[in-house]
Amino acid sequence: MVNPFFKNHGPFKIVELIKILKLSDLKIDNDLEISDIKDLYSSKKGDITFFHSKKYKDLAQKTKASFCITTENLKDDISKNCIPIIVSNVLVSISIITSKFYPDSLLDNFDDKVDLINETKFKHSVKFGKNVLIGSNVSIGKNCSIGHNTIIEKNVSIDDNCSIGSNVVIRNSIIKKNIRILDNCIIGKHGFGFFPNKDKNIRYPHIGAVIIEDNCEIGCSATIDRGSLSNTVIGENTYLDNQVHIAHNVKIGKNSILAGQVGIAGSSILGENVKIGGQAGISGHLKIGNNVEIGGGSGVIKDIPDNSKVMGYPAKNFRDFLKDNR
Amino acid sequence: MVNPFFKNHGPFKIVELIKILKLSDLKIDNDLEISDIKDLYSSKKGDITFFHSKKYKDLAQKTKASFCITTENLKDDISKNCIPIIVSNVLVSISIITSKFYPDSLLDNFDDKVDLINETKFKHSVKFGKNVLIGSNVSIGKNCSIGHNTIIEKNVSIDDNCSIGSNVVIRNSIIKKNIRILDNCIIGKHGFGFFPNKDKNIRYPHIGAVIIEDNCEIGCSATIDRGSLSNTVIGENTYLDNQVHIAHNVKIGKNSILAGQVGIAGSSILGENVKIGGQAGISGHLKIGNNVEIGGGSGVIKDIPDNSKVMGYPAKNFRDFLKDNR
Amino acid sequence: MVNPFFKNHGPFKIVELIKILKLSDLKIDNDLEISDIKDLYSSKKGDITFFHSKKYKDLAQKTKASFCITTENLKDDISKNCIPIIVSNVLVSISIITSKFYPDSLLDNFDDKVDLINETKFKHSVKFGKNVLIGSNVSIGKNCSIGHNTIIEKNVSIDDNCSIGSNVVIRNSIIKKNIRILDNCIIGKHGFGFFPNKDKNIRYPHIGAVIIEDNCEIGCSATIDRGSLSNTVIGENTYLDNQVHIAHNVKIGKNSILAGQVGIAGSSILGENVKIGGQAGISGHLKIGNNVEIGGGSGVIKDIPDNSKVMGYPAKNFRDFLKDNR
Repeated sequence: MVNPFFKNHGPFKIVELIKILKLSDLKIDNDLEISDIKDLYSSKKGDITFFHSKKYKDLAQKTKASFCITTENLKDDISKNCIPIIVSNVLVSISIITSKFYPDSLLDNFDDKVDLINETKFKHSVKFGKNVLIGSNVSIGKNCSIGHNTIIEKNVSIDDNCSIGSNVVIRNSIIKKNIRILDNCIIGKHGFGFFPNKDKNIRYPHIGAVIIEDNCEIGCSATIDRGSLSNTVIGENTYLDNQVHIAHNVKIGKNSILAGQVGIAGSSILGENVKIGGQAGISGHLKIGNNVEIGGGSGVIKDIPDNSKVMGYPAKNFRDFLKDNR
Repeated sequence: MVNPFFKNHGPFKIVELIKILKLSDLKIDNDLEISDIKDLYSSKKGDITFFHSKKYKDLAQKTKASFCITTENLKDDISKNCIPIIVSNVLVSISIITSKFYPDSLLDNFDDKVDLINETKFKHSVKFGKNVLIGSNVSIGKNCSIGHNTIIEKNVSIDDNCSIGSNVVIRNSIIKKNIRILDNCIIGKHGFGFFPNKDKNIRYPHIGAVIIEDNCEIGCSATIDRGSLSNTVIGENTYLDNQVHIAHNVKIGKNSILAGQVGIAGSSILGENVKIGGQAGISGHLKIGNNVEIGGGSGVIKDIPDNSKVMGYPAKNFRDFLKDNR
Repeated sequence: MVNPFFKNHGPFKIVELIKILKLSDLKIDNDLEISDIKDLYSSKKGDITFFHSKKYKDLAQKTKASFCITTENLKDDISKNCIPIIVSNVLVSISIITSKFYPDSLLDNFDDKVDLINETKFKHSVKFGKNVLIGSNVSIGKNCSIGHNTIIEKNVSIDDNCSIGSNVVIRNSIIKKNIRILDNCIIGKHGFGFFPNKDKNIRYPHIGAVIIEDNCEIGCSATIDRGSLSNTVIGENTYLDNQVHIAHNVKIGKNSILAGQVGIAGSSILGENVKIGGQAGISGHLKIGNNVEIGGGSGVIKDIPDNSKVMGYPAKNFRDFLKDNR
């Protein structure tokens, strides 16, 4: 997992973390300091991790984390070198701990540290419109242009030969080479991820970025949300039409085409050379193979293997769709 | 019906109203003044009301209005104290009369009375970005922030702890506490309501407001239209994802979740704790119960009772949907 | 075909055009100059045209163009006065040649030649908000208003009595009389047209305009793309609701109504008095007749004859839809 942008506010003493989880019964050695929260695979000694589903059992047995948030049922599958912290809801607890380490990733208040671009170092290197605003930790390559009223908030890297339209807002994003982002796009805001909770939902932090690979085009009024614990990725030479919505953690392979008003729900992974007709939707957490064609208006609610052509709601093999609708 | 914002340009003499309805044959006592136009239930002596469907017969018999716009067929069901005004099309006539009383509610020309926020009383009490504009009759509570280029047009009340993003336009709206409105939202414009008419449609006035209750989140590029003769209401702790469209007069109960690109057509009423998957649509004038789950991509075209789970187009019981699509 | 806006950078010698098509084997008389690229019907002596499908055979036999880009298979159907230029992919070749004549139509970089409206001749004749920008070759009629932060880029004609909202971007468009364009619309950007090509798609030029006829209303956050080799046209007194997407080359007849989030794919032609419910989609290159009603959520994938009422996905006769979904 890449987290290039959000500042780690740790380390925190383990007792402090246990306190904010309201686990008053838990007795833990006072002095240990925790550096970071990471997943089972990438965490190291001194980190806290989490284990919430049997399918990660193998990873849990090998984790190098010092502590692991988990449940009573799962705790025996954790590495003997890692101390389990038993909670009732693992995801809510992670959310609380991640917010402690990365508080800036929780809310997307407007960036009040921006400057007018002609008061920045980009004054001479970038072609820009009126009223363009630039936040901190922004880099912009050669031969780029940025349209009127566009706001590049903090934590944005734009590589060479990019054209950003007018009225665009970008934050927490890596925009590579030769990319065109058209007017009114919103890129890099936190995903629509939270724990429903009566009277006051619990937000969870989104410490991922949006990564747009070389040669992409992003149509007008598209929204691309950044990931929670991973990144949202648009592959090389992939084109998005107007009013497309890409949710958090989605990955789209290269050479893909998404027509107008398409929506991809959170955490779905699309292969390369995927073609999606207008207004089609893809549910969350699905895997769409390479060279898949999805007809306009389709609703995809299960995985689609490589080289398939599907259409319908729910989407089915294209020939079956035609046959069933003769 | 709450009409907190639009100025009543009345009273008008009844003869004047009859004149603009082009009812030259109608003879009416000249001197009566009409204060307001209201529905059958809330109108009082001195008001004009309307009666266009048999299902409101009971209310018509009890109305306290002095005049009632209605048809030849319906006129005998009106209270004896109320003088019927017979027209060929009740709704078009109401539209004309409402426009007379509330001309400002008909068109949403841009608000040319705004000031830059640093020239207003909010200069010190609100955290704000560049180029923020504030209209007349605006109140903003404690601990609020407003992003760059956002326009708070006239008739907006924002309560404490609200975060408004960048490039947002709000008018004729009541935004309560702890609300987050993300970038590019348009809130409070008139609904898509008019009478189709060859060569030149007849707009009808929208004198309702948008009311957003405590703890809501409104995603990027959402549009929420204000009501015509009632308000559009988003219940407490309800979250809307990106690119959601809420039409005029819609009411959504508390603790609801609407995923990306969902659309709710005019005047539908949703209960509490309703969960709607991405791209689903709900037709107008429907009643969706409490604790209803609507699958992504569904098209709902009839009422849904409490505690149901539906999916499909047209949406049906979720088990039937699965069975029919095996 | 109307191309009111894009500058023709020709004439070019035919040898030069052949060179950029990389047809090194082709021997052509050196001295001929080509004035323009046009379709088979409208091209004249001195123009280059193209012929890529048998269905245009009759036009090919009568074309007055001096040269015609075509394939080995089709070349014998071309007028004897017109010299065929044989290529492997006609559309890609046209794209290259059109880009040569009209390079400004290929990319929509932001217009850096705009001025604040109060520094233009419109200072006294137009009612305008803060931060309104006006490009070159713009005309604005009497009694118009333009909202805050709106950008009228180059090549826009706005006739009398128009109201443009805030945060709007318009380019390459003809806006006729009494038109209302609401907040956040993007009108006149190039269509989503290109030739998919591994690692780097090939864009094709869009030299058409958007034409909006008298008395239309365009809802918030709508996107209307300009045409490629023809115009995108919204007929008189047609109303679009919020978040509607109209792709390139689409033509919509007069007195039509498109509800929220409707999408029309490229090159479809809609008749007069067409009513389309919310979220419905129409595939590309279809013909929808006069007086057609399309139910909300429908997906139209074939032509619809006059006076039909359809619903469903794929859309079918409304009675069949009801019967099949009882």
